[in-house]
Amino acid sequence: MIHIDVFPYPPPVLPCAGKTVVVIDVLRASSTIVTALANGCRAIIPVEDAEAAQAMKTRYPDALLCGERDGLKIRGFDLGNSPFEYESAKIAGKELILTTTNGTHAARLADDAGAVLVASFLNFQAMIEHLKSVEGEIIILCAGNDRQFSLEDALCGGLLAGHLYNEAENCRLTDAAEWARHAANSLLGKAHPLSVEVIYPLLHQSEHGRKLFELHFENDIRHCARLNVFAQVPLLKQGKFII
Amino acid sequence: MIHIDVFPYPPPVLPCAGKTVVVIDVLRASSTIVTALANGCRAIIPVEDAEAAQAMKTRYPDALLCGERDGLKIRGFDLGNSPFEYESAKIAGKELILTTTNGTHAARLADDAGAVLVASFLNFQAMIEHLKSVEGEIIILCAGNDRQFSLEDALCGGLLAGHLYNEAENCRLTDAAEWARHAANSLLGKAHPLSVEVIYPLLHQSEHGRKLFELHFENDIRHCARLNVFAQVPLLKQGKFII
Repeated sequence: MIHIDVFPYPPPVLPCAGKTVVVIDVLRASSTIVTALANGCRAIIPVEDAEAAQAMKTRYPDALLCGERDGLKIRGFDLGNSPFEYESAKIAGKELILTTTNGTHAARLADDAGAVLVASFLNFQAMIEHLKSVEGEIIILCAGNDRQFSLEDALCGGLLAGHLYNEAENCRLTDAAEWARHAANSLLGKAHPLSVEVIYPLLHQSEHGRKLFELHFENDIRHCARLNVFAQVPLLKQGKFII
Repeated sequence: MIHIDVFPYPPPVLPCAGKTVVVIDVLRASSTIVTALANGCRAIIPVEDAEAAQAMKTRYPDALLCGERDGLKIRGFDLGNSPFEYESAKIAGKELILTTTNGTHAARLADDAGAVLVASFLNFQAMIEHLKSVEGEIIILCAGNDRQFSLEDALCGGLLAGHLYNEAENCRLTDAAEWARHAANSLLGKAHPLSVEVIYPLLHQSEHGRKLFELHFENDIRHCARLNVFAQVPLLKQGKFII
């Protein structure tokens, strides 16, 4: 029996002891993490802020410093939070220290979890296949923006819950997951099957999407709206995201 | 311009300074508050817990002690949290000190708000009429259950946002409000117009509704699912809910 819960934004406390937590920050941390691992980086170490990133750098001097604040690369860092910066030539075989406004906070909220995974539209179907084999409770945790609701994360989370419910045997949704499934399906209207053409306009018109558009990250939004590009399922292990 | 946001469960921090906050705890605090004020009680003083209620009683010795934990009346208190206990004969002209698991926490989260109102299905249309005349930002805060998502509150909140959006001129929904509107409408299916026959099964089958049903509060659920029974709009003024 798979039991699925959905949090459309980070709650004060996440009751996740021993459970599988799927973190979603579509724009852009989870899309960037999936892209970076697919492009060959060895591991990604999530940290809360720039200071913690610098401290971690003393332990991992060869690691790249990565992350953003207000959408832009942190001063003195090697890479920002645009998935296009994470090309193989720059990151293959390397460890990355990553701080982002929303994604790393969400990952830390799940400290107590049995397993922490990273989902996005890019690895949507791969995540569903992976979750089908999970026993017990799954929490889909939408990272949100500044710890508030963010449409693109809730959309991805609601669709993930709904697709898993349809595809897995013996799957049960909590009221919150059922609510998210209804919202996501209604927002899409009859625009199934899912594709980048359906997802992109919703991401682009969302509050967070419009902000990124103003910062000239339209290509990032388009990349993050792509469906099933990667088969990788990032997993947090001893403080590092790996595949 | 009315600007509506919806929180389907209490966030860690509610950015509500100067805004109008509508608190919803359908099962049962907000339904009980509306019923009690409609039945003639003078004011309701929300407090966090039983200890705070006892302390408040020394300031208001004539007030009734009211509230529940785990759905049941607190030992030594005058009234629990069932709206049926709040009949005119017992409460007319009196002040009530009320502590409930969810509703009073939500009201306190909105400490900073410009105004705090109490909504339920019982005063649904009255609340919409009231909110039409509000200038600025409205936050619909679903109290949830144990600070987690609770379907009946999100349903009432999503419908409130949707109806207000349809009926008011110059009304804008945030992404979170739009999300809640979609979920609520989809959950109802084509079961418009709203009525107790439509709302009751959803409340009864919800996680929280099933718990109350097991505690033999089926009549409470049915009462809380009734639509537009009262015209009162409770307002928090100097620490007391009044009409």
